[in-house]
This record gives sequence, structure tokens and C-alpha cells, in this order.
Amino acid sequence: MSTKYDIAALKARLGSIKSEDNPALVKQKSRDFFWYSPTLKRQLDQVTGDIIVSPTSEAEVLQVLAAAHALGIPVTPRGTGTGNYGQAMPLSGGVVLDLSGFNKVKAIEPGRYVAEPGAILSDIDKQTRAHSRQEIRLHPSTYHTASVGGFIAGGSGGVGSIKWGGLRDWGNIIRLRVATMEAQPRILELQGEDLHKVSHAYGTNGIITEVEMPLGPAYNWVDVIIGFDSLRGATEFANSLGEQDGLALKELAVVAAPAPHDYFLRHRKFLPRDSHCVIVMVADFAVESTLAYARRFRGAELLMRSDKLTPEEAKGLPPSFELAWNHTTLRALRVDPSITYLQVLYPFPNQVELVEKIHQRFGDELTCHLEFVRFDGKITCFGLPLVRFTTEERLEEIMAIHEEMGAPIFNPHRYTLEEGGMKQTDEIQLAFKREADPQGLLNPGKMIAWEDPEYDYRAGKTFLFRSLGEAAGG
Amino acid sequence: MSTKYDIAALKARLGSIKSEDNPALVKQKSRDFFWYSPTLKRQLDQVTGDIIVSPTSEAEVLQVLAAAHALGIPVTPRGTGTGNYGQAMPLSGGVVLDLSGFNKVKAIEPGRYVAEPGAILSDIDKQTRAHSRQEIRLHPSTYHTASVGGFIAGGSGGVGSIKWGGLRDWGNIIRLRVATMEAQPRILELQGEDLHKVSHAYGTNGIITEVEMPLGPAYNWVDVIIGFDSLRGATEFANSLGEQDGLALKELAVVAAPAPHDYFLRHRKFLPRDSHCVIVMVADFAVESTLAYARRFRGAELLMRSDKLTPEEAKGLPPSFELAWNHTTLRALRVDPSITYLQVLYPFPNQVELVEKIHQRFGDELTCHLEFVRFDGKITCFGLPLVRFTTEERLEEIMAIHEEMGAPIFNPHRYTLEEGGMKQTDEIQLAFKREADPQGLLNPGKMIAWEDPEYDYRAGKTFLFRSLGEAAGG
Repeated sequence: MSTKYDIAALKARLGSIKSEDNPALVKQKSRDFFWYSPTLKRQLDQVTGDIIVSPTSEAEVLQVLAAAHALGIPVTPRGTGTGNYGQAMPLSGGVVLDLSGFNKVKAIEPGRYVAEPGAILSDIDKQTRAHSRQEIRLHPSTYHTASVGGFIAGGSGGVGSIKWGGLRDWGNIIRLRVATMEAQPRILELQGEDLHKVSHAYGTNGIITEVEMPLGPAYNWVDVIIGFDSLRGATEFANSLGEQDGLALKELAVVAAPAPHDYFLRHRKFLPRDSHCVIVMVADFAVESTLAYARRFRGAELLMRSDKLTPEEAKGLPPSFELAWNHTTLRALRVDPSITYLQVLYPFPNQVELVEKIHQRFGDELTCHLEFVRFDGKITCFGLPLVRFTTEERLEEIMAIHEEMGAPIFNPHRYTLEEGGMKQTDEIQLAFKREADPQGLLNPGKMIAWEDPEYDYRAGKTFLFRSLGEAAGG
Repeated sequence: MSTKYDIAALKARLGSIKSEDNPALVKQKSRDFFWYSPTLKRQLDQVTGDIIVSPTSEAEVLQVLAAAHALGIPVTPRGTGTGNYGQAMPLSGGVVLDLSGFNKVKAIEPGRYVAEPGAILSDIDKQTRAHSRQEIRLHPSTYHTASVGGFIAGGSGGVGSIKWGGLRDWGNIIRLRVATMEAQPRILELQGEDLHKVSHAYGTNGIITEVEMPLGPAYNWVDVIIGFDSLRGATEFANSLGEQDGLALKELAVVAAPAPHDYFLRHRKFLPRDSHCVIVMVADFAVESTLAYARRFRGAELLMRSDKLTPEEAKGLPPSFELAWNHTTLRALRVDPSITYLQVLYPFPNQVELVEKIHQRFGDELTCHLEFVRFDGKITCFGLPLVRFTTEERLEEIMAIHEEMGAPIFNPHRYTLEEGGMKQTDEIQLAFKREADPQGLLNPGKMIAWEDPEYDYRAGKTFLFRSLGEAAGG
């Protein structure tokens, strides 16, 4: 595949900055977990950049951006490629800006740390734990592989959200440094209200070069799995447990039978096939209170607690957060590749009833998977239900029915910010793109408001970025 | 005043355990802050024990209890006497069990500590902060004087409740050791469900001899005061701020104008007389986010932030939590002794409207004081309104109107558990008293269910304990 960009000229301007243009390696680093979605798999499978460039300092980032800007080459930033929606896939080719080597933890203080964007979340934790028994507040289930910059640019919450809410909630990011895409790239410092400009913007309007993030206390977390013979029982318990403000919880999920038994293969020995499971991470000192509270719920059965396993039993067990969030889907996909998923909000205060109503409606076509979170000061749950995939049309229909029934969908089968999010223009992110990327060279095709300001979100169509259209057209 | 108890025989049995029976000193240590309430002041002003006994170990506590049991002498435990409802006042005389010298911190671990009951809350914090930058989760505004055992036996929450909920919520107490009042006193270990037996039981059914409590992270807390020109504006802001799950808050109160200016004398220079104040404790790293969030609210005016004061300005300023909870009342009382207070719950989700409606109804007779807390997983507020006292009858009427309007009252003008609480028998505490204090010698007169099982809470009367009746009668 020939490219329209002058990659040779770019390389000349990169000096000693590491780069790679072997097409196989470039294609490999142009991908993420988009293949969770059959729709995205069809649309994005051929997407590749032209060159991977791997700066390891802010100065190098600025040098790459200036060079690409001068040559009119798009730049798509990437942490470690653990996103699910093609966030970091270069739809127009050009530079894949690999930030995984720009990864030092620079400072640790009470309640906060400063790091470079490529720092892996679990590596940050190792350092903050050793330094002062602190840990990051929020992480995706890809804790061991995801970078903090990628999480901020492309994630939204995860493990820890039962305590701290979402990543974009006030206080969950303290400060970001961002490089602009201009002839002379600038560095901007963003705090407070300004953080909304670039968090969860997929790197479409600036390149994060430094993060300052809050820390929570690092406890000894215990994994607890409690089984119920009805989904309703599991959901009611999880919701009530989440509302116990004094319990130090880090994760709280529900996975309906028979998924735990069928898909959590290493845990299978603990999981009866008909048990609807509540998966909990709780501080060691709160385990007894949590179990005492559970005994108030009819049919609650303790299936596993990690602090009482023999070394034999514990051997090879993944941490419970690797049964949750997108890892639930991943484990299901490994067993049954025909499965896909949705992202649903069940709004407070009717979440328990709504979960039941929706799952009764769909029966076996959907398997319930809930993640309880704090949301605007209340406890409610997101759903990442497993879907027995048939056609893209049926998938659309399932989502439409959810919305009709009162459960908003954050569509994980779309690569644009708007379609995956609120289905409307984010004026703040758009305005910042005008300022920080006037040529529209950063991660092209992901912000509909930029590409097609007249786009009608209510038309019920899928946005198709022109570069993909061209590719599809030949 | 002669006593009906054989105090000389008791002293003989105490051996080397410290005691004091000088009547003036005994009376002084038989009192708490009951005089906040004109009703309690009238009822309890003459209450005194016969002897103060000050054990400094569990073995000594057991020895005192056995001796008093043998002689049929009542025992009323006391930390440092910072309660407001006569919790630790010996209505039937006898032994005041002064636990203030039984006060060591015995162990500090990640997320928890173990201490003796007389340990002062701020002393615990000094040790846990120095050990591992941890701090107690919850404390009353009498942080510098209150003991942890007294707080558990007689308190209910306070500073930190915006984060962790109430003291009796699951997880906010880990374990208690309790001595029984029997011929051969036993030690019981309580966890989980059993903690409800003795927490907030005023020491009527056991003597706490050891506590294991959770710790939170010790941040650098900044005091922030934000002013509004309307009470509604202040209340709406405070409620919304409390719902920001990512902000590390420790305290969140509203005090209506002109109380801050009129009563917070050392802060007066910051406080315009017509400003309704929102008082916030927030971690240093979250101050900018908090202020950015405040700028979204019309009329929000930053009146003070402690991290930007000059040494001159900061000199002599108390911490902001000493403007909150019962210290608000205390400061008002110091300026205007005719003031008293209430304890009100404004239930979620109508708290903001209810506060406005109730305060419109009463006008200047009540000054609004709100304390925002997590309560069953949601944000709502308690009120400790300042009341311009006229008569006890009017005070009763004001409380009745609150309840009619949907705001339950926890009556701070009563010395019994039930009247100050849910106005019904606590079967768990009662059952435990039958087991742990079969002779009814612990803190007599405070548990109506024990003294008068047939008592009708709906009769609209005040329970009068027989010992007080006798005293009043001569």
C-alpha cells in the first residue's frame, strides 16, 4: 500500500528519535481491541499507519509534532493500544505516535503523583505503593498493560469507580500538560474546568505529555465472590453493598449465570453453573463486615475469598478485576467468539428494576454483566452485557430497545467520540481542537463535529469517515 | 448529699486503682455539655456520682466492675465528657468510671488501628500520621478533647461523614472488646453484626475496653469558605459539591447569615454579615478543582482559603471543623446564651427544598446550619439549626412541626437513647443488656426499654427516670 505522505522527509526531520516503518510492525502497532466489536472489525481491520514514531521526552514529542505539521502528516497518539473502539487507530494513516517509552513516574506526594503519559498503570502503583502505600484511584481491567495517558485520553473509569466515580469527574485528574499540533507546537497546562478539553478526546486535540493524578490509600485488597440463585438477588445485594459508605470497596460487579462458570475458567472450581455472582474487591479489614452484611441477604453464598485460599487453590488465579469490566467480555470471547457486548447505563434510582426488566425482555440473547459505580453522588450501575451476536442490524435493534426502555447506550461499536458517547457535539473539545490542532492533523476521523459539522446524529446512521470510505472504495 | 451506696467498701476493693471522692471534683467529672439544652440543664444540673474511679487497664476495669457488682453500685462510663445529652452523667449516682487514663494506641496497620477506649482522637491521629500518613475517618468537632471510646458509645458521626457516612455504618468500626457487668465480668469480642449491640448505647450494656477502627489517608487539608447571597444558593452548591465523587472532601457545612459573622469571631474579618457560608475541608490537591467547580455557581464568592493566608492572617484561627457540628452551636452560645439547637435529618432526595421550606416557615427563630453527609449511599444533610429559645413548650412545637413537614428530629434535649434516637426500642441493645448487665447497673436511666418496657413513645411526654424524680422530689 503506497502512502500519500512524505515519510522519508519525516524521517529526515526525526533525527535520533526512534521510529519503525516495517509494514507488519506498523500494522501491529496500529491496532487495539477493536475486534471486540464485529462492526468495528469489519470497518477497521485494514487500518494501518505509515510509521511508528516513539518519542521518550516532551522535547521529542514537540519535535515530532513540528515535523509532521510541516509535512501535513496526520499523527495518532497511542499508549499501549488497550482501547476497544479503535481510539488509537490511524484512520488516515500517517504517524502512529507511540508514547509507551515516554513513561517515567516523576514525583510522588501525599495524595498525588506526576508521570509521563506512557507509564503503565501497574508500574505506577508499584512505585507509589513502595513509596508511601498509596495507589492510583481508578484503572481499567487492563491494569497490567494500559498506560495512564491512554486511559485519560480513551478510558472512562473502571476498577475504583465504586469509590471515586468516573475518570472525568471533578478531582480524578489534577493537571495535564498538553502539546499542540502547530508549526511551533506549544505546551499548555490544564487544570480544573480546562481538563474537560482533552480528557476522553482520543488525542484529537492535543498530545498529553504529563499527568498529575490523585492517589488513594493502598490497602490489602481481598477478592470475594458471593453467589445468588437469582439475578435479582445478586443485583439487589450488590446495589445495597455499594451504598454502605463505610466499607472500603474497590470493585463491585454482577455477572449472571452461567457466564462465571462457563467463561471464568481458572475460577470455575468455585463457581456453580447456576450461581449469579457478585464480585467484590474489599480491604482486608472490611472483609468481616462485608460478609456479615451479606448474611442479611437471603440465599447469599460465599463462593470464594482470596485471603482464605490455600497456595494450591490460589495458584494461577487471576485477580478478580480481571473477571470484570472489559475482561468479562474478553473471557467470554475466548470461549465463544460469537459473543459481543454493549455499554449501558441503568440510571439511578430505578437501576435494579430496569436491569431485571431489560434482561427479562431479551432472555438468553443477553447475559447480564453489571459494574456498580458512584455516579453524581449516588450508587448505580453500568452494564456490559454479553450479547449473542447475529447481525449488525439486530445489534442496532437491541441498543434501540435499551434506549426506549430508559437505559442509555454508550455504543462500543463506533470509533467516533460522539457516537460512542453522548451523540452530540462536545463544544469544549471542538473549540480546543480549533485552537490546538487548526490543521486537523491529530487522530483524524474520530471527532465528527470537526469532520462534518452538519452531521445529523438523529438520522440513525453510522458516521463513515472519508478515509475509510476511500479505503473501502479501493 | 448522702449516698445509698457503700463507697467505703468499694474503695477497699479497689486496691491501687486510682479514685477520687472529693464532692466538688466528682461533680465536675459527672457532667458533660448537657447545658447546651435548656431542658437538660434544668433536669440534670444536680446530677453527680459518688466517686470517680480511673482504671488504666482492662484488668483494672474488670476489677472495678466486679467490685461495684458485688456491692450493687451503678457504674457510668465516661471518656472525657464531651457529649451533649448527659450520656455520661450518672443519674443514679454511684461510680463514674473515668476511662481517660486508659488511653494507649496499641497497634497501627494499613487501614486500621487498635487503641484503648480513653485515647483522645487527635492523639490517635498524631500517632497514625507519624506512623504511615493515615488518620481516623470520623471525628466530632471536639477532636482535640474527645476519646474514641466515648465517641463510639455516645457519638454518631461528624467530620469525615461527607466521605464515610455515620459511625454506625458498616465498616466504620472493625472490632470492639467489651467487658460485662456481672459477678465475674467477662470480655466479649464483637465484630460485624454484633457491633450494633454496643455502638451508641451510652455504655448501658457493656464497657468498651479496646477498639479496632479503620483509618483513611491523611492528606494536607485546606479550609475553604465560600459565600453566597442566598441560603438556597449555598445549599444547592453544597449539595452538588458533596455529589462530586472524585473530590477528596472531609467536611461540608452550610451556616446561614448572619451567624458566621456574628459568632465566628476569629474568622469575622473574612465573613461579610450577609454571606451564607459553605465551609469545606478539602485535600490540598483538590482545592483547584473545588474552586473551579464553585465558579459554575452564580454568586459563589471565595471568602477564605487557609493555604493562601499570610501568617498574620492565619494567627489564632481555629480549624474550620471547629466552626462546624456542635462547635457551631458552642460559638453561638458563647455570644448569645439564649440560643439552643436541634438535630434534624432532611431526607434524600428532597433535602434542598425541605431546608428552604422549613427555614421560610420559622424565619428568624431558627438559623440554618447544615452538615452534608453520605447516608445510605446518597448525599443528604443533617441540620443543627440554631434556635432562639423561648420556652420548652415552643421548642417541642418547633420539633413537632419539623416532623410534620417531613424532617425527622433526633432530639438533643433528652438524655435517653430512645428519645434522642428512633423513639422505639432497640431490641438488639436491649437483648445485649439482659446478657451483659443483668442487674441493670450500667449507666442507669438511659435505656427506657430497660427501665420501663411499657413506655409509650407516642404519648408525647418526656421520660423521667425515677432517680431524677426522687432528686426532684427532694
